[in-house]
Amino acid sequence: MSMRINISGSSDLLRLPPGEDLLVGLYRICREWGISFGVFTATGSVRGATLGHLDRECGEVCRQILEVDQELVHCGGNISLQEGGLSIRAHAVLSDRQGRVSAGELLAAEVHVVELFVQALRGTPPTREPDPETGLWLWPVA
Amino acid sequence: MSMRINISGSSDLLRLPPGEDLLVGLYRICREWGISFGVFTATGSVRGATLGHLDRECGEVCRQILEVDQELVHCGGNISLQEGGLSIRAHAVLSDRQGRVSAGELLAAEVHVVELFVQALRGTPPTREPDPETGLWLWPVA
Amino acid sequence: MSMRINISGSSDLLRLPPGEDLLVGLYRICREWGISFGVFTATGSVRGATLGHLDRECGEVCRQILEVDQELVHCGGNISLQEGGLSIRAHAVLSDRQGRVSAGELLAAEVHVVELFVQALRGTPPTREPDPETGLWLWPVA
Repeated sequence: MSMRINISGSSDLLRLPPGEDLLVGLYRICREWGISFGVFTATGSVRGATLGHLDRECGEVCRQILEVDQELVHCGGNISLQEGGLSIRAHAVLSDRQGRVSAGELLAAEVHVVELFVQALRGTPPTREPDPETGLWLWPVA
Repeated sequence: MSMRINISGSSDLLRLPPGEDLLVGLYRICREWGISFGVFTATGSVRGATLGHLDRECGEVCRQILEVDQELVHCGGNISLQEGGLSIRAHAVLSDRQGRVSAGELLAAEVHVVELFVQALRGTPPTREPDPETGLWLWPVA
Repeated sequence: MSMRINISGSSDLLRLPPGEDLLVGLYRICREWGISFGVFTATGSVRGATLGHLDRECGEVCRQILEVDQELVHCGGNISLQEGGLSIRAHAVLSDRQGRVSAGELLAAEVHVVELFVQALRGTPPTREPDPETGLWLWPVA
């Protein structure tokens, strides 16, 4: 097996508009810039957030809704393809004013101040396909 | 809108000297290398740390001081411009020997062992300007 | 001092096979691709995990074993050299179905679904040498 040559493409630092959902903003930026293959990180502060944790036994994602404002200590994820469109997956670590830390898959978060680093990759992105074992949409195994 | 072409520039792995403040070390490295646009991550262990959490109602940052040694599980942030100088923003996730996890904006931390990845970007960095709504220094919105 | 010119090399997104240990998989990928200098991040879900926290007084790593399934909210680390071979160091933030967050150096974790971003760097990787003060294998200080 040899590594595909995916020289790093364009990358940038930018700020998402207040009030926009973080994931909606990510999909918008990727469409505007024509990115379908890449990675990103984000930090800042958000108005609440919804986190997911995969329950492996039932194959479903348990939701954890955070009502209070959160510091977005880390958000990271990747951009690839699924059913001919974009697929963005994000995970996040959050903390509130009392220092309580929460973490999981990031399903939703309203932007207060979010700074985003997007790094596009060159080459052919992996494509998510239904995985019969887990019930999830997954890339092929390397 | 089109993505600015910021091909990734130089990048490197390096270790900060023990006893130096992590943020002071970051500013020093950026000045020595002439970096004013980029991203970084750091891991290792630090002697205590000061974390900040933005209190949106008063626009101020609440400080959380960690007295005991901490594993620096993740630190990430960006390098841009503010008032003609460098502006480095960092967030961190820390844990102590008892497994207690803390997270927030990283305001200070004394290096014990810190390994740093710095990735310079090419192009024009965004500049932080005072934002009347939040009272913070922010980049323009994308 | 001047920054070494380490233009970013190849990078890729890929999925590790279920059942493989995350670190074993990372070493395997690096060997298959000929990577001895770089950084990586990973997210997904794992079957338990073993975390380490450096105890500075005795210079040893305390182990924290997580029995239950964990969301791999963030894993990040670097690839360099040690004694003529590869050295991979990883830290991770994990959360379980009840939202309990754990974090530390990642010593072991069985892959359920793990998506990996590997970014190879060009140039000469730093080499870990025994550090008499800490008893750890460390790069030279920058």
